Amino acid sequence: MRFISSENNDLIKKVKSLKLKKYRELRKEFFVEGARIVKEALMSSAEIKEIIISEKASENEDIAETICMAIKLGCDIYTVSETVFKSISETTNPQGILATIKMADYDLEEMIIAKSIDVCKCDKYFVILDEIKDPGNMGTIIRTADAAGFNGVIVSKGCVDVYNPKVLRSTMGSIFHIPINLSQDLSYALKEIKTQNIRVYAAHTKGNLYYYEADMTQSTAIVIGNEAFGISDKTMESADELISIPITGRAESLNASVAAGILMYEPLRQKKLCK
Amino acid sequence: MRFISSENNDLIKKVKSLKLKKYRELRKEFFVEGARIVKEALMSSAEIKEIIISEKASENEDIAETICMAIKLGCDIYTVSETVFKSISETTNPQGILATIKMADYDLEEMIIAKSIDVCKCDKYFVILDEIKDPGNMGTIIRTADAAGFNGVIVSKGCVDVYNPKVLRSTMGSIFHIPINLSQDLSYALKEIKTQNIRVYAAHTKGNLYYYEADMTQSTAIVIGNEAFGISDKTMESADELISIPITGRAESLNASVAAGILMYEPLRQKKLCK
Repeated sequence: MRFISSENNDLIKKVKSLKLKKYRELRKEFFVEGARIVKEALMSSAEIKEIIISEKASENEDIAETICMAIKLGCDIYTVSETVFKSISETTNPQGILATIKMADYDLEEMIIAKSIDVCKCDKYFVILDEIKDPGNMGTIIRTADAAGFNGVIVSKGCVDVYNPKVLRSTMGSIFHIPINLSQDLSYALKEIKTQNIRVYAAHTKGNLYYYEADMTQSTAIVIGNEAFGISDKTMESADELISIPITGRAESLNASVAAGILMYEPLRQKKLCK
Repeated sequence: MRFISSENNDLIKKVKSLKLKKYRELRKEFFVEGARIVKEALMSSAEIKEIIISEKASENEDIAETICMAIKLGCDIYTVSETVFKSISETTNPQGILATIKMADYDLEEMIIAKSIDVCKCDKYFVILDEIKDPGNMGTIIRTADAAGFNGVIVSKGCVDVYNPKVLRSTMGSIFHIPINLSQDLSYALKEIKTQNIRVYAAHTKGNLYYYEADMTQSTAIVIGNEAFGISDKTMESADELISIPITGRAESLNASVAAGILMYEPLRQKKLCK
């Protein structure tokens, strides 16, 4: 455990730079803040670079427990003053613990190719995000995909940055539980997915099939489009089927993360009922 | 159309006071801001007190359309300078249109008693919110309840104020589409609901019935609990059945509005499949 006294320290400057997307992409690193999410990171396979704690942080029981976990795992731990911690924190009342982490962009092929060994769980489920812009929606969808036991999240280039602090907070730790592929070309990804016999259902308000009429008992990918404009024309053409959620009231649409939640739980429901 | 030049005008002072819950409750009024939601209010049965627009607002096509609608409906319209509008607005870049509206607290009995005339739609569906604290969740749940064709939302005393500007924004106008009952005593409300043969299902992580195993083909009320602590013990005792959403991944829980969305769409799915 080393002590850093100055804001001009290189590590402190690095963490500050990671608040911006361009430096996160340059360094292939991001940071998470708070006892709970740091603990989730420590328990996962994420590659943790540094743990930074404030001098008073260990007075809190939850944080003390997380620090002990980090010590046991042999992490590089740095202590800073409350003032220095405040200067790097994203929150107004920082808990006093953060971790810098190596980005883990999963390879699409590796993610989608079903391994023959994995016999009993050979069906695979993915959610594909096409230009999701709201950080809260993005994080909540990752959290729900984790809860529903999905195998991965594929994120289009035009989406909000997955490593944006608001997204990370909304995932409630699920960012460390589920593989995420940052797709540079969604059309290519959709083509690859279809060659693996994974059915692609895209959510569309004018979809001709209600989601509960779609067969999701075998490998399925669900595409969720932009909050205001829905899925792109290109994605619409690539999808096997457009599915919709019936709106019987006077609301024009559903919130994107609620719609995603309803759709992502449908395969689980169908498969449980099949048993 | 009258012009208000000063921030000391009584109407301007009233609107400013409506930013605080205590004055909203005292005056039984609230306000909504932006062309879209003001339009929704105008098209609904809401009792609009005043419409306030900024001098430049009519330059925008959407706002101009909304102003015309207000004129045709004979609303009291007041024009103010951009500076005065900024002083009453809740947003950093105000669109320049807002409406003050009389609160419409629906009577519980009126809401839940099925009218015999309404034969073909005699099943009634309600969502009951027990200490929902996040404004975004509250608004999104109201929006989803509207979309799923629910008959009303019952809100416990300990919930975030329904007329909080963030809640109103998240409802996307659904606040004007669906009856809302502000319950002073949730135990009493649950008792009343049960006397009407409405089955009460409360969401609980340890619920012994998965939501898709619960019969929701007849009148149903779904209870959603607090984001951190779930439903209260009292509510748990009053419920007919505790239902859960399976978590097969490593997420600890679902976001409250996503969970509510999955549960509120279940009756719709069951009834469509019954046909």
